[in-house]
This record gives sequence, structure tokens and C-alpha cells, in this order.
Amino acid sequence: MAGNSLGKEFVVTIFGESHGRCIGVVIDGCPAGLELSKAEVQRDMDRRIPRGSEIVSSRIEKDEVDVLSGVFQGHTTGAPIAMVVWNMDVDSRPYELLKDIPRPGHADYPAKIRYQGFNDYRGGGLLSGRTTVAFVMAGAVANRLLQRTGIEVLAHSHSIGDVFSRTDLTSDEIRRNVYSNPVRCGDHQAASSMEQAILSAANEGDSIGGTVKVIVSGVPPGIGDPVFSSLDSELSRALFSIPAVKGVEFGAGFDAARLKGSQNNDLIEVRKGEVTYLTNRAGGVLGGLSSGAEIVAHVAFKPTPSIQKTQRSVNLRSMEHTELRITGRHDPCVVPKAVPVVEAMVAIVLADFALRSKIISTIFR
Amino acid sequence: MAGNSLGKEFVVTIFGESHGRCIGVVIDGCPAGLELSKAEVQRDMDRRIPRGSEIVSSRIEKDEVDVLSGVFQGHTTGAPIAMVVWNMDVDSRPYELLKDIPRPGHADYPAKIRYQGFNDYRGGGLLSGRTTVAFVMAGAVANRLLQRTGIEVLAHSHSIGDVFSRTDLTSDEIRRNVYSNPVRCGDHQAASSMEQAILSAANEGDSIGGTVKVIVSGVPPGIGDPVFSSLDSELSRALFSIPAVKGVEFGAGFDAARLKGSQNNDLIEVRKGEVTYLTNRAGGVLGGLSSGAEIVAHVAFKPTPSIQKTQRSVNLRSMEHTELRITGRHDPCVVPKAVPVVEAMVAIVLADFALRSKIISTIFR
Amino acid sequence: MAGNSLGKEFVVTIFGESHGRCIGVVIDGCPAGLELSKAEVQRDMDRRIPRGSEIVSSRIEKDEVDVLSGVFQGHTTGAPIAMVVWNMDVDSRPYELLKDIPRPGHADYPAKIRYQGFNDYRGGGLLSGRTTVAFVMAGAVANRLLQRTGIEVLAHSHSIGDVFSRTDLTSDEIRRNVYSNPVRCGDHQAASSMEQAILSAANEGDSIGGTVKVIVSGVPPGIGDPVFSSLDSELSRALFSIPAVKGVEFGAGFDAARLKGSQNNDLIEVRKGEVTYLTNRAGGVLGGLSSGAEIVAHVAFKPTPSIQKTQRSVNLRSMEHTELRITGRHDPCVVPKAVPVVEAMVAIVLADFALRSKIISTIFR
Amino acid sequence: MAGNSLGKEFVVTIFGESHGRCIGVVIDGCPAGLELSKAEVQRDMDRRIPRGSEIVSSRIEKDEVDVLSGVFQGHTTGAPIAMVVWNMDVDSRPYELLKDIPRPGHADYPAKIRYQGFNDYRGGGLLSGRTTVAFVMAGAVANRLLQRTGIEVLAHSHSIGDVFSRTDLTSDEIRRNVYSNPVRCGDHQAASSMEQAILSAANEGDSIGGTVKVIVSGVPPGIGDPVFSSLDSELSRALFSIPAVKGVEFGAGFDAARLKGSQNNDLIEVRKGEVTYLTNRAGGVLGGLSSGAEIVAHVAFKPTPSIQKTQRSVNLRSMEHTELRITGRHDPCVVPKAVPVVEAMVAIVLADFALRSKIISTIFR
Repeated sequence: MAGNSLGKEFVVTIFGESHGRCIGVVIDGCPAGLELSKAEVQRDMDRRIPRGSEIVSSRIEKDEVDVLSGVFQGHTTGAPIAMVVWNMDVDSRPYELLKDIPRPGHADYPAKIRYQGFNDYRGGGLLSGRTTVAFVMAGAVANRLLQRTGIEVLAHSHSIGDVFSRTDLTSDEIRRNVYSNPVRCGDHQAASSMEQAILSAANEGDSIGGTVKVIVSGVPPGIGDPVFSSLDSELSRALFSIPAVKGVEFGAGFDAARLKGSQNNDLIEVRKGEVTYLTNRAGGVLGGLSSGAEIVAHVAFKPTPSIQKTQRSVNLRSMEHTELRITGRHDPCVVPKAVPVVEAMVAIVLADFALRSKIISTIFR
Repeated sequence: MAGNSLGKEFVVTIFGESHGRCIGVVIDGCPAGLELSKAEVQRDMDRRIPRGSEIVSSRIEKDEVDVLSGVFQGHTTGAPIAMVVWNMDVDSRPYELLKDIPRPGHADYPAKIRYQGFNDYRGGGLLSGRTTVAFVMAGAVANRLLQRTGIEVLAHSHSIGDVFSRTDLTSDEIRRNVYSNPVRCGDHQAASSMEQAILSAANEGDSIGGTVKVIVSGVPPGIGDPVFSSLDSELSRALFSIPAVKGVEFGAGFDAARLKGSQNNDLIEVRKGEVTYLTNRAGGVLGGLSSGAEIVAHVAFKPTPSIQKTQRSVNLRSMEHTELRITGRHDPCVVPKAVPVVEAMVAIVLADFALRSKIISTIFR
Repeated sequence: MAGNSLGKEFVVTIFGESHGRCIGVVIDGCPAGLELSKAEVQRDMDRRIPRGSEIVSSRIEKDEVDVLSGVFQGHTTGAPIAMVVWNMDVDSRPYELLKDIPRPGHADYPAKIRYQGFNDYRGGGLLSGRTTVAFVMAGAVANRLLQRTGIEVLAHSHSIGDVFSRTDLTSDEIRRNVYSNPVRCGDHQAASSMEQAILSAANEGDSIGGTVKVIVSGVPPGIGDPVFSSLDSELSRALFSIPAVKGVEFGAGFDAARLKGSQNNDLIEVRKGEVTYLTNRAGGVLGGLSSGAEIVAHVAFKPTPSIQKTQRSVNLRSMEHTELRITGRHDPCVVPKAVPVVEAMVAIVLADFALRSKIISTIFR
Repeated sequence: MAGNSLGKEFVVTIFGESHGRCIGVVIDGCPAGLELSKAEVQRDMDRRIPRGSEIVSSRIEKDEVDVLSGVFQGHTTGAPIAMVVWNMDVDSRPYELLKDIPRPGHADYPAKIRYQGFNDYRGGGLLSGRTTVAFVMAGAVANRLLQRTGIEVLAHSHSIGDVFSRTDLTSDEIRRNVYSNPVRCGDHQAASSMEQAILSAANEGDSIGGTVKVIVSGVPPGIGDPVFSSLDSELSRALFSIPAVKGVEFGAGFDAARLKGSQNNDLIEVRKGEVTYLTNRAGGVLGGLSSGAEIVAHVAFKPTPSIQKTQRSVNLRSMEHTELRITGRHDPCVVPKAVPVVEAMVAIVLADFALRSKIISTIFR
């Protein structure tokens, strides 16, 4: 069944395969009259890969954005915006060997069942980290919309393995630092330890996991729809669509489960004539609605399943055990590339809510 | 904007208010010919409240299920199934006093903004734990469908505050024990410590959080749709629709973020001619598809925001600070009541997937 | 699969059966703050049946509207609005005899296949003209919303059999006359001939068809979404959901197929500083968008399939031919009752478009 | 708001502009394992234009299909299928002159309002007959699916102006003749009169309308979902998405409105052990479900609004009247090109229903 579309008013549909001709996206419902150039989307795209760093795969795609429709004379037209990135540096040879041997931690086996053996197994086909290229293109448009509203989405690497960034980091620091180091961390000191942790895993032929923190500022109170389209429901749905995500929490999250109500409640106060909160353990979400405080979430990423160590698996033809060693080009940690992807997904959901809640539309009219 | 429907083929729409006339649900898309009686739905409903226990609110609703449509001669007809529970024991007086004073940890303030003051503020209106009555009714029907497929959803209280259930608990133990103690925990010993923790918080006029673990067995590999309707995307969306949920993780979840790939990958083996896994750190989900292993998730619940301690808030009319003491009837911990609710939401999502993936339909046809 | 919901922002879900306990509706997405009383919905409901006339069935339902949720202190709350009409005057005996003998012109046979014999066959179950009670309740709320925008939906019986209303009828005449005669025709003289035509068919134990004309004024230009949610696409979808509809056309409709472009194009002019059209053969729809002129559509209704004449059918058990004589209570013509139903469906679609296009929302905010 | 997607399981999303870079389509939900080659889609595409005939516009596009994703080793993969046709022969000069002068019968004025002047006005942008190229690509895939089920969709030109095809035409004749004459009519004699009627209108600098008849065979009884996703609701919605459609009727359609029940009911009989009907005035649809008989619909197309005669319009800048003469390249009648487009839209809707009703899925599994 169909599942490659996200959103109600700002509807994002993706297509393409890791080793096919392209990765593409169609955005339906973007209002007419938004200034949009290829260069702006390209700028977001270019943040996806920390080029020159040893922590990323040696598959080097130029990832040049090609706008196919929906933009005319430098503005969106209200018609669907289609964009693609053509795949250039594809090497599918390693996958032929793996065709019948599912890689541990990958969806190879369930995908084979799901698609009765007809799925494009090269690089995971559609079920590949490469499809996040489409998320980033859509996120770029979403971010352009959000700029009109004062909403800003900011993400960074909160942890890699056991290395955590400082807890007292400000949004300003994150904004300033995040794309100036290859691990995309707002804390410069932690960044260099994180890089070491990734390289150390890579040198062992291994990989490593981590978490991304995302902060959204400028969201007015009351955004969200009851009950199944609440702000946290829609955000979590979008975040779990990112490959390798295993957990999502808002505010205090799992820590809140250990607290008393008197410890966890954010007391309410008036500051400069506005309702505000003494703390933000709710992570900006109350009853599925934005509280008016910053939306804060943590997203857990598992370590890259493709590792160079020999692993045990099964040959699905002979149904016999086999040893497997993956030789393709893989990132030893997905988290650095995931930072702009998390930003993109959160921006897409918020652009959708902004349009639904008429915040943006009244700006455009 | 509308958001009170969930699902694509098995579509659940809820209505009603905590202090209104009723809580109701409409289920559209349930196949014809499913045996269904009011008694079966009632049995699930009755598990929602550990009656007689001191750990639950003194609001005593009979919660009698009233089937309005879609069932004829003991079977579903294929037409929408509407069911309501009529509210009986409503005491709205405490809420009149709180009308202009938002309760910390509740959605009162954002809801007032969102609905421009017209929302039913009594007991949170639609944004109330009481709406989970509707989830449970729909879950009962979903579970009847799943029975035909061999899929079983099992949940229990994994932790209350700092009290955790044993990690080596089996599904058999959970199934046997969960509804025989008021905290709905599969581990009898932990259950009594959990009960103590709740009573102790209650005695202090406070509340306490916890986590629910849910295990789904019998799901064949390959269930889930790429990319935005993946199994974990849809489950997390549904779980975050439950009031008080602040985090969701699958398998190793946030712990996976600290691991190496070689530690986290579940190696693949053949057992009795079937593909299986040596471990289940993936929690039964790979690339958004069911792996064939049990689906395992943890859901974090914050402590009940309504506590009897005096809290700081704001009078929204005068915009002056005020002290607030909540006097209504509230559960000191939502987790015990949440156990059947988590079961219901997971069953609803899986029934939807089962219908979409033709597992059930081929049984029915 | 589920299909009992209509709309994107103003989402209407129906439930209930002709001979079950009730007919109900849930409206999700209605903005908060709309003044709404049961009396207003009841007034629309009461227009559905020309009571006291011989042209309607002798099944007399009081059709009293019962508001279950979503309205508080005389206003909508933003939560789903659930309403039911309880069935009172049900006589299911005639249907027991017909259980295995499909009635010509009815969906008995395909419904039996579709629902594998489990559908509620009494009075057609969900597939009954009686479900239009739900449409009318939802339409009443939609009309309340549209009142805020200046959009008015007006329908009347355009023809019954070969009796047509005058072509030069004005909207004022229709508004004034339509509910003052039992056939719901704006043309008083035609109305009495129409009534005769219906009674004459009834006296022969037969039934008769007709057409309803609907006129929508006050729709600004540019309403509609490309391509599959165009104004005419969405309106036709809703109109074909009304039982017994066999055709829908906008403006010149099928006549336009016989014209030249120079005859059919509506020339454009400026009147009082506004863009307008010399004619309205487009029926107010150009390229799926409202043109700014009145939206005009004709809807064809087949004659009531339940007639008292003996008809040929099949006993589905024995698979032998049989003669069938229908003895239940039926309207000899559905058109008079269909007039408020067509109004309701068109109002529902326009309310949805009005919310989507921000016309209403900016009024409410 | 978004509206460029159609379908629930077989979801078609279109993009592109008449004078932009391409027309494209994404099909999400097509099952894996369907044999599909570019050549097959191209064959359907090539039927769209009666090349060499004087009755079509002189804009000559090669319309070569380019498959971007979703097909691997000659089969669908289950991932979204994206296809584009690149625009080659674009001449936008005539549209610059018309930028501020809406063409009668076109959506220029409402589109300018709808998109606040930012829409691509060249050739109507997205609101152009050229987007039907996308419908045809999706229809080709839908037809491949339907081949597995025995469902066949057949359309032809039923009338052009006042020239009607024979009423006793058989499906065999239509299948044999339809693409052997430029007007796509199953009746060879009528075809030549139709061609004359078109050429005669063209010679006068005028255009002409017509109707398309579509016949679907092989649909089992019981296909369709109550109430708002009924077979006729969904078909009419799709048909009204085709530019220039002004009316849709099933079976006897508007004629049924003039009949008595005893004349219009299709009596039921058993033939060769199967339930069948003596007549098919219902057009194969009863209560929104397929009856088991052939689905028969007529679709009315207005005459091409672009004519070479001088027409009255308004300059939207000066708000003064002006005379307008359209000089672009246009078909004098849209009906011949519409025949494969109607086939495509009906095939898309039926493929969606077939998947929803598990007809195809059980074949694929």
C-alpha cells in the first residue's frame, strides 16, 4: 500500500532509489508566491555531507538539485514542486554478491518478503539513507515557508556513542557552530571527541550510534490538532521515517517517567505580559499542542548496520548459514548526516501545521 | 483542522468530552462477518480500571458500552461501527474555579488559545485521559480482528518511578499476571513495590510517572509501508496520541545510540527452517518493516499533572500570578490505566496494517 | 475498505442503519466559536419531509436531533460534533421475506456479495435513503459556517418526470417558494403539476424520477484545488454519494457537448469595477476553479426502485426465478426529499473548501 | 491546498506544466512484481495523439516516456514509479501578450486570483490539457494491473457536436475501430462525419464539443465502498478532473429522471447459473456498488475554449474592455485526445478499487 506521502496541506511525496537514476520529491500544497531558487535548496543540500572528512563514505555524489516544476520566475506557482538529484557515483557490484544474503541490521529480509523478491536490492533501493536527499529538498522549501513565520528549526549532534555535548549549550552556540565541524555538533569541544569516537569505530571496521537534539523556536501556543494529529504524534511519525531512528522523546522524555508530578510540572508565570514557563520539561508540547515554549526533542539513531566485520547470516536460497562481510561504501556513523535530515523533517511537519493553522496563509494573503 | 481519525483501512474516529454526555468512537472499514458482541468490548473496557484499588481516582464510571451501529445478529456488517459510553459520574464544579487559571502540566493554556476560549474546559474536554475509553472500544474490535491472524498484543507496566519490573520476564508471565494486580505489571513482586510507590506519591499529594512495555507476537515479516507509513512511524504516531506520553522507543531504543554496530546488529540464523534472529535489539522493526521477531516498544508516561500540592500559575484574565490547588478527582499515576490503552492503540495500528497487507482480508474472503 | 468520511478540513463521517438504532454523524474540523443550537439543526431536518403530503412514505419518524458532543454553551468547541437521530418507527417485517430476493434497482445483490451476506439487509441498512438524515445534520452545520462567508446554497426540484420548472426562475423565487409546496419546487405552477405526476405514478403502484437544480451564490473566484480536488470533482463526488443519483452536470453540461466554442464561451466584461461574465454556460466553474459567477448544477435522480408492481427477480438460495412484490413503505419519488439533501451535500463541500481556502478561518480569527 | 493526488492504494500524483520542463507522475502503491516496460507505457502514450490528422494542434511533441524510478529488471519493485515526458516543442510567445487578458472559457482569471498572480500562465500551466499526459502514463500502469483481473476499460467518441455514433455498437466494434480513425470513434461511418464536423468548425476558426462513452467489462459485483467512496462517486471525481468535462452520467443517466420505476428498473434473472440483468439502465452501478453488469458512463466535453474568432474580454491591469484573438496552437475539438484520457482515469480508479478490494492483491500473492 502507498505510504510515500507525508502531510495534509504541505504534502511531500518521495521517489527514487539509492542505486537507481535519481532521488526525487514532489511537494504539493506549497502556496504560490514564495521566493525560491535552486541555489537555496542547493545550500541546504550541501550541508548534508561534511565533505573532505574521513567520517563519511567515499561515495561522492555531487547532489546537484534539479527543479522540474512548480517554480516560475523565481517564485513558487502553487503547482506541485518536483525536484530530483540524479545519482552519479553508483557502484552496485557489491550488492550482487549480497542478493540472497540479508545483512544484519538492514531490512533486506523483510523487504524481500514484502516485495516478493522484486524490490531493488541495490543499496536498499528506496529503503536507504540516500532517500534522505529527498527529505532535505522538501525541508529546504519548508524552511523557506517557516522563515515567513519566525519559526526556526535547529538541530545538532547531541551525542555520539558515549560522548555527549554540554547540557548548557545555547541555541546561539548551536546555530553558530553546528555546520563548522564534520560531526555537526554545537559544542566544539565535544565535536572533536565525537569525531575521534567515529574514527575509532571506523578503524575497527565498526560503526557507532548517537542522538540528535532538535529545538524549534518561534512556535506560538496552540499549534496541533487533537487527537491523532497532535504535534508530537505528527513529529514522531516523521522522525521515525528517517532510517536508523529507534527512539523519540520530547522534553524530559523517558526521564519524566521517573519523576513526581511536583518535579515534572512546568510552573506558569507571566513575563513581559506573556504567559511563560519556569522550566521546559514538557519540551514545548502539552496535550498535543504547542505550549509556547521551545519544542525540544531527542532522536536516537542506531549505529550504521553496515560494518566491515564478519557477521553471521543466512543464504536465503539454500537456507544455510553463511558468514558475511560487507564491502560497500558506508558511513561509520549516520548521525552527522542525520542532523540536516532531522531539521528537514521537523520543518516539513511544522510547515504543514503552519499552513493548516493559517499562520502562514494569512502572511501570504 | 480535523485530526480525530486514525488509520487507512481500519479508520477510527473519536468524539466526546470528559464532562460531556459521552465518549464515543466510529470504526469505519472493519470487514463484515466478524463475530462481535457488546460483552466482548465490555470485557476489554472493564480491564481499564483497577476497581477497588486506592490507586485510582474516586470518579466511578460504570463505563457501559452502548453499540449504536454496525453490528447485526452478532456479527459486524461492514458498515461503520459506532459505540458510546455515557458519562454518569460527572462533577464539573472544580473546573469552574479553574476556568481562567491554567493548571501546570495540562494543555489548558494552549487549548484556550487554539480554540479561542470556546473549548470545553471541564476536565480537559476532548483533551482528557477519559477519551482513552474510545481507544479501548476501538482496540477491542481491533483485537477481535487480530485474533483471526495469530497476532497478539501484550502490554504491562514496565516501571513506576524508580521501580522496574524484572528484565527476564516472559510473555507468559505477563499474560498471566498483568490484570491480577492493580498496577497491571507482569512481575508480581515489582507490582507490589509499584503500588507502594504510587500510594506514597498520593499520600504526599503528589503523582508519579512510569513506562509501559508492549510486545506484539505473531507479526509476519514484511509488514509496514515505506517511507512515511512505516511500522514504527505509524505505531509512534498512535502512541503519542495517548495523553501523557513523552517518549517512544523500539527495541534497544535510546540505548542503541550508545552502541557499536557489532554490538547492536541482530545476527541472522535459520531455526526450524525459518529465518530468525539471535537477539532482538531492533525490537522487531527493520527499515520500517516488521522483521519477523516480536515487536517490542517502551512508552514513557509523565507523572499525572494534576497534583494536590499548591502550584504557581497565572490568572489569564488579570494576567497576575496566583497560587493554584487542584481539588478534582485524579489518578496519582496514569500508567496502570494506560496499559490497556497502549494495547488498544497498538492493536488498532496492527489491525490497520493487517487489513492493508491483506493478511486478514484473505482470511475473511 | 473505509469510505464513510468526506472532506479534508471539515470532515463528515456517517454511521447508522435504516432499521437500526439510529442514524448519526461526526463532524471533525469545525472551527470553535460557531454559534450552534440543536434548534437550528432541527429546522433543517424538518425541511426534509413534506409532512402531511400524500407524496411521502407513511413511515413517520420524528427525526429529533440529539447532539452528543462538540457543542458547549451554545457554541462549537473545536472538538468533533456528534449528532444522532434515533429511529423510532421501524417495521422490518417486510424485509425478512425479501432476504434472499434482490429487489430490482436496489443494491441488494451486490451488497450481499460485497459483505458476504453479513450486511444489514433491513431497509438497505447503511445503503438507504434514510442515511441522508446524517447528510442533513452535517449540512446544517456547514450552512451555519457558510453564513459567515456570504455563500448561499439553494436547491429546488427542477423537473419531475416530464414536468419542468420555468427556465427563467430567479433565485428569489426559489428561495421564497421552495419549502412552501410538498415537491420543493421554486415554480408554484410547475409544483402542482409535479405533485400530480407523483400522485399519478403512485396510484399506478409506480414511481417517478426527476432532477434537482442547485445554485450557489457568493463564492469568490479562485476556489478549488488542482487537479483531483477541483471544485467540480469534489462536488460531483459528494452528489453521487446521494442514493439514486445517476447524473451530474455543471452549467450547460451535456448541452455544451453539442455547441461550438463561440456559442459556449462566456465572454468576460467589467461591471461596477468587477470582472464578470455575459453568460454563465460554465456554471461557475472554469478549470476546476470557481469563476466568480454562480455555481449551477443539475443532478439527475432515478425513479424510486421500490414499486408496488410485480417484478421479476431471483431467489438467491434456490437460484430460481421468482416474482416479487414490494410491500414496504416507500416514497413514489425521491426528488422532494432530495432537495435539502443536495443543499446539504453542496454546503458540506463548500464549507470544506471555504476552510481550506482560508475564507472562513480568517473570519473566525 | 494540495489536491494533485488521486487514489487510496494506487495513489497517482501529478506535476509539471504545459510550457515548463516536463509533465510527470508518481504512482505510489503499485504492487511489486508487475511486468512493466517503457514500451508499454509508450504505446498508450502514442494513442493519445492522432498524428498526421488535421484535427489536432500543430504543437508536435514526441511525448517520449522517461521512467525515473520504481521499475527494476522489467518489473515494478513496489517503490513509487516516477515517469516524465519532457516538453520539447514549447512556444510561449503568444502567452506573453495574453498575460493580463483572460481568455473566455479558460481558468485564466480565477487562477490569477487563486495563485495571486504567481501561477505559470503559459499555456495554462498545470491547468492545461497537456497534463493529461500524466494521466495517460498512470493509466498505462493501471491497465497493466487490470489485465491481471480480467477488467477491461474501453472508451470511444460517442458524439461530436450533433453527430452521434450508432447506438447498437458492440464493444467488439469499438475495440477494433477506435484507434483506426483520428476521431477515436468505434463507428466508422460516424467517425468520418465527426471528422468533417471538427474540420468544419476549425475552418470557421471555431471549435466543437462532444461526448465520450466508456464501458468497463469484467468488474465483479460488489466493488465500491459506502458512502462517499462509492464506485460512481470516485469515478465521477476522476472524470471531472479531466479538463473541459462538464457532465457525467451512468447508464440511463439524465434520461432516467424522466422515467417511471417500472421502466427504469433492470429486472433480475439467472443466466448460466449467474445472476444477471435483463437490461442495464443502471449502467452497472447500484447503491454505489458494481452490479456485475458492464459499467457504462457518458462524459460531456465542452468545445475547446481557445478559438480564433475575436472575443470580448478585459485587461485586468487597466480593467478596460478589450478584444482578444487567440493565436496559439490548439485542437479544434478535445474529444479525440480525451478518449485515451477517459480510459486512463477510469482504469486508475478501478485499479485502486481492485487493490482495495483485494482482487489484484490475491492474484499477486
